[in-house]
Amino acid sequence: MSTYAPASATRPGRPRVIPRAASAATPRDEILHAAAELFVNRGFAATSTRDIAEKVGIRQASLYYHFAGKPGILAELLELSVRPSLEKVERIERECPAEVPEAALYLLALIDADTLATVPHNIGRLYRMPDVRSSEVFGEFEPALQELTAAYGRLGAQVVSGPVAATVTTDQLGGLLIQAVEVVIRIRSRGATVTPAQARAIAATCLRICGVPEVRIARASVTADEHLYPGTMIRTIGDQAHTSK
Amino acid sequence: MSTYAPASATRPGRPRVIPRAASAATPRDEILHAAAELFVNRGFAATSTRDIAEKVGIRQASLYYHFAGKPGILAELLELSVRPSLEKVERIERECPAEVPEAALYLLALIDADTLATVPHNIGRLYRMPDVRSSEVFGEFEPALQELTAAYGRLGAQVVSGPVAATVTTDQLGGLLIQAVEVVIRIRSRGATVTPAQARAIAATCLRICGVPEVRIARASVTADEHLYPGTMIRTIGDQAHTSK
Repeated sequence: MSTYAPASATRPGRPRVIPRAASAATPRDEILHAAAELFVNRGFAATSTRDIAEKVGIRQASLYYHFAGKPGILAELLELSVRPSLEKVERIERECPAEVPEAALYLLALIDADTLATVPHNIGRLYRMPDVRSSEVFGEFEPALQELTAAYGRLGAQVVSGPVAATVTTDQLGGLLIQAVEVVIRIRSRGATVTPAQARAIAATCLRICGVPEVRIARASVTADEHLYPGTMIRTIGDQAHTSK
Repeated sequence: MSTYAPASATRPGRPRVIPRAASAATPRDEILHAAAELFVNRGFAATSTRDIAEKVGIRQASLYYHFAGKPGILAELLELSVRPSLEKVERIERECPAEVPEAALYLLALIDADTLATVPHNIGRLYRMPDVRSSEVFGEFEPALQELTAAYGRLGAQVVSGPVAATVTTDQLGGLLIQAVEVVIRIRSRGATVTPAQARAIAATCLRICGVPEVRIARASVTADEHLYPGTMIRTIGDQAHTSK
């Protein structure tokens, strides 16, 4: 089955023999991965820097060499789940051909679904956790999330049908669209992987939510393809299964 | 502004003078409300039965008279967020006229949006929290959630368009639809209320996700109305603002 493979997924059947040297991951990445797994599965408040250091196999002091404590790690993980999509919004808006405005929302949804499908340990879940929302770094992250939601609303409003425009504000549309793409988080929470075909179906769903007719959705998909390849718009589409939740 | 008001919302500007007698809520309800607020805002693991008892203003021993501890309270709160919708699925399927099959999904989405909009303290969030998912009672709750998701998929599959059927399985459709309705949780997490008009827009969104044309969505909405009133299908649509998150 063709699935998204996170860039840093361990290869199946290849247990790490020599702890550090055999891995391409930097100590910094290893800390982020370990923290992601602990935060998502155990909770942010319930995880200590000692837990993280132990999981990586380093001393607690070494962890502080790379990060200013738990909030710094959380801040970086939160960024990871939003920043890659947000960074591409400007490019999408600039490059999308005027005659196929639907391709812009399609591309954003596809790229964002890809981001959420490939981040380690389904960290898209983090920002909804109460202990994360009440943490000191959440306030710094929230504007980025609002900016991404606003981008969904803006791109959606450009292609919205009459009945949708009459019943859904641009702000509400942004919420409906980002919510739809976050089905990726739901799928991964159940232990399943998200295939590229599913990501495309999610992008098409976003256009349907806006009331875009099927012929224009098909055209948006073709136009989006021309801008995805060759390119850096999508990070990883592999055919390698991964098991991280 | 017309908004959903939870049945047990405190009236604005009427602080409780005599703790128990002035309130229509039973001690059991008061415990559920206090626990809901603490679980959602502080976390399940981080809340003790002592915290809950203190918030209600009763002794810890009295709490155990009503509930078999924290897991029992959580189990009831999880049920509250799913059971009211699930219980109506059979009736929806039975009563929905065969000539307007779209009305069934519209009704389920509307009723479920109503459930999520009126449960105290946005407890629809609970089941996504790691400490809740790893609790002993989550396993008992999960089948109900899966049943509700399957109902969405089943009702969606009855009205799905060709292009949607070709790209989305019934199982995936169920996930997309329940995910869309859970935008209510997202809206409430931001401190906003969900209006009946928004709930209708969410129900219409579900039909758009299935590829249902606008004329049939409009007809589904009219048919759904005939089955909602007079009735017990929707619990509360008021015009009273509430502030609980």
